[in-house]
Amino acid sequence: MDIKGFQFSAVEAAIKKPGRKDLALIFSEVPAMACAVFTINKVRAAPVLLSEERIKSGIAQALIVNSGNANACTGDNGLIAARETSRMVASGLGISDEAVQVASTGVIGVQMPMERLRTAIPGLIGGLSSGTFDDIAQAIMTTDTFPKLEVRSGVAGQSGYTLAGTAKGAGMIMPNMATMLSFIITDAALEPDFLQQTFRKAVDNSFNMITVDGDMSTNDTCLILANGQAGNPPVGAGTPEAEAFELLLQDVLLSLAKQIVRDGEGATKFVEVRVRGAEGSDDARKVALAIANSSLVKTAFFGQDANWGRIFAAAGYSGAAVDQSRLSLCFDDVCMARNGIFAGGDAEARGTEVLRKKEFTVTVDLGLGVGSATVFTSDLSHEYVSINADYRT
Amino acid sequence: MDIKGFQFSAVEAAIKKPGRKDLALIFSEVPAMACAVFTINKVRAAPVLLSEERIKSGIAQALIVNSGNANACTGDNGLIAARETSRMVASGLGISDEAVQVASTGVIGVQMPMERLRTAIPGLIGGLSSGTFDDIAQAIMTTDTFPKLEVRSGVAGQSGYTLAGTAKGAGMIMPNMATMLSFIITDAALEPDFLQQTFRKAVDNSFNMITVDGDMSTNDTCLILANGQAGNPPVGAGTPEAEAFELLLQDVLLSLAKQIVRDGEGATKFVEVRVRGAEGSDDARKVALAIANSSLVKTAFFGQDANWGRIFAAAGYSGAAVDQSRLSLCFDDVCMARNGIFAGGDAEARGTEVLRKKEFTVTVDLGLGVGSATVFTSDLSHEYVSINADYRT
Repeated sequence: MDIKGFQFSAVEAAIKKPGRKDLALIFSEVPAMACAVFTINKVRAAPVLLSEERIKSGIAQALIVNSGNANACTGDNGLIAARETSRMVASGLGISDEAVQVASTGVIGVQMPMERLRTAIPGLIGGLSSGTFDDIAQAIMTTDTFPKLEVRSGVAGQSGYTLAGTAKGAGMIMPNMATMLSFIITDAALEPDFLQQTFRKAVDNSFNMITVDGDMSTNDTCLILANGQAGNPPVGAGTPEAEAFELLLQDVLLSLAKQIVRDGEGATKFVEVRVRGAEGSDDARKVALAIANSSLVKTAFFGQDANWGRIFAAAGYSGAAVDQSRLSLCFDDVCMARNGIFAGGDAEARGTEVLRKKEFTVTVDLGLGVGSATVFTSDLSHEYVSINADYRT
Repeated sequence: MDIKGFQFSAVEAAIKKPGRKDLALIFSEVPAMACAVFTINKVRAAPVLLSEERIKSGIAQALIVNSGNANACTGDNGLIAARETSRMVASGLGISDEAVQVASTGVIGVQMPMERLRTAIPGLIGGLSSGTFDDIAQAIMTTDTFPKLEVRSGVAGQSGYTLAGTAKGAGMIMPNMATMLSFIITDAALEPDFLQQTFRKAVDNSFNMITVDGDMSTNDTCLILANGQAGNPPVGAGTPEAEAFELLLQDVLLSLAKQIVRDGEGATKFVEVRVRGAEGSDDARKVALAIANSSLVKTAFFGQDANWGRIFAAAGYSGAAVDQSRLSLCFDDVCMARNGIFAGGDAEARGTEVLRKKEFTVTVDLGLGVGSATVFTSDLSHEYVSINADYRT
């Protein structure tokens, strides 16, 4: 991957159990334009409070991120820890404190082991020359079973540019936002307003359309850094280059979002829930999320049970306008119900066949209008229960 | 149990697998005052549509209820089936069709096996002389592991009266309402307005304050019949008798609601979530329900993991006003966190001890006002997943 002007480093700081890297650093050689979307949870981690305040400048040059400890529900000491962490990075890199973003993921309610960070940060900075973006993807994993990466390249003016992203899931995945960290970097030069709008829209159409368990985290952070080192004339809204960049960004984020669902805690199925025919897109979104968050629907997916009635029930309580006599539902191309009732014939057997697959689509048509929405989700398995019953032990 | 002027019957109509009663009848020898609360799901079963229309008269004399088939998502044929069922009961009992309430619970999306009902209903009516209220409790069970009953008696004027209730759970348990059927009968004479108000309030403070999995059913029905055969002067609002009746009714409903949670699908824990210090009672309710519905919180209960951070996170996304620096949390009398941070000392070990118990209380104080609410819930276990993965097979 060739992405100009960015350096990477990751080390084992012993925040997690030994044997895994848990502290990572992304550094842009020049100040980069920056934009971020954070959790809307009112219980928010110290690094979120700090980074949210700093990102208002629209500029950042470094990101330090740890896994193993969320630095959430840690009060004033948590904030002091986040500030000290950023100060160590800033002074080691010779940049302004305000240009450092901080992110954390892991257990809630435990103070950061600052001694270990103090010991590890010099080596972290020293490793920048030899690290790769893959190291970042590895270091931010918690219950993730694989690192999540996506890279795309584009052209603007005469210059090629690269767009790369990484993310971590894997539980507490829910819109506004998933429990997740995601970091996107690009060497493209972009106009600030265009970056802000495009990024927020892309987050809305990707990370805000996935759900694993309906829980919303205290630490969600999705950050983009654009350092302009590709040398292109800055891309602004309304140009063909803007459209191309927007598509690439959307692609990267959607790919990362889908990777998070595929790696959802205990997930054995990857399900695309498509809602059509809603009175509006808000209604469509409500229905899709109600279905995707229903424990009864998700356990039926796990059991490979073509229980379409539970899906209609979830649509019915979603809060959207629903007329039960107009509802229809398909698993992939098998129509299970039409006008609110069972489609008959061999639908049951064929629907069950679809649910045996690892990936399938549920399409619900409300028959009321033209609103549509798509949400990606997983099933609810024994393994989800096991992972989360024992998360801290 | 002596409850004047009511008769009961239950038979095996082969709607469920053989060996279990699945069709039941409650008959009042005289027309009774009636009031009911139904699911607010927009996908609603045929018997709900029918009974909801009829109950507007405020009068009912018979209730026929089946388990094994919800008669939901069954379209026009479902309504025809519910009407035919009620007609058979009315003509067999020599009462008006309009005085018959119909309720169903079981699988969604399958047409009612009307041949079997036609065969069974004469025997059902014939058995009224010898049946008991316990038979009703047995016949309405689906995944319930025990029948749910509660009986209380009171005095009004010179007359003793009895109040009895039964209910069935056990999944799709969520306010407005739980997936449940509950039938309350009393021989007390009551003024109609008083009955309506008291009943709705009691439902709100009981069945609408429990949650097992956050799903809302298509069939929820909570019905009360008051036939006045105790001979007391009708109880009206604002009297000491009214207050006494209200307490008894509240007791019966709360007991049934708690029984439903105790018997929640796969439940290994019974948890009382108390929220205090909210800006208002609406906010308190939001926080309590967010905690009680969180998959991450519920799996931690199952794992006996004193993960208070997840509980704060759920409070934070509940939509209520929350200031994280004022939050406190106790498991029974063990304070786990104060002012938003870990309480320290041996709280972890003592909190874990509490979570090892089968029943415990979680108290969250928001520190903002005087709003409070209590919700009852269960944990999320492997067994819940198993039950719901295979429900229809």
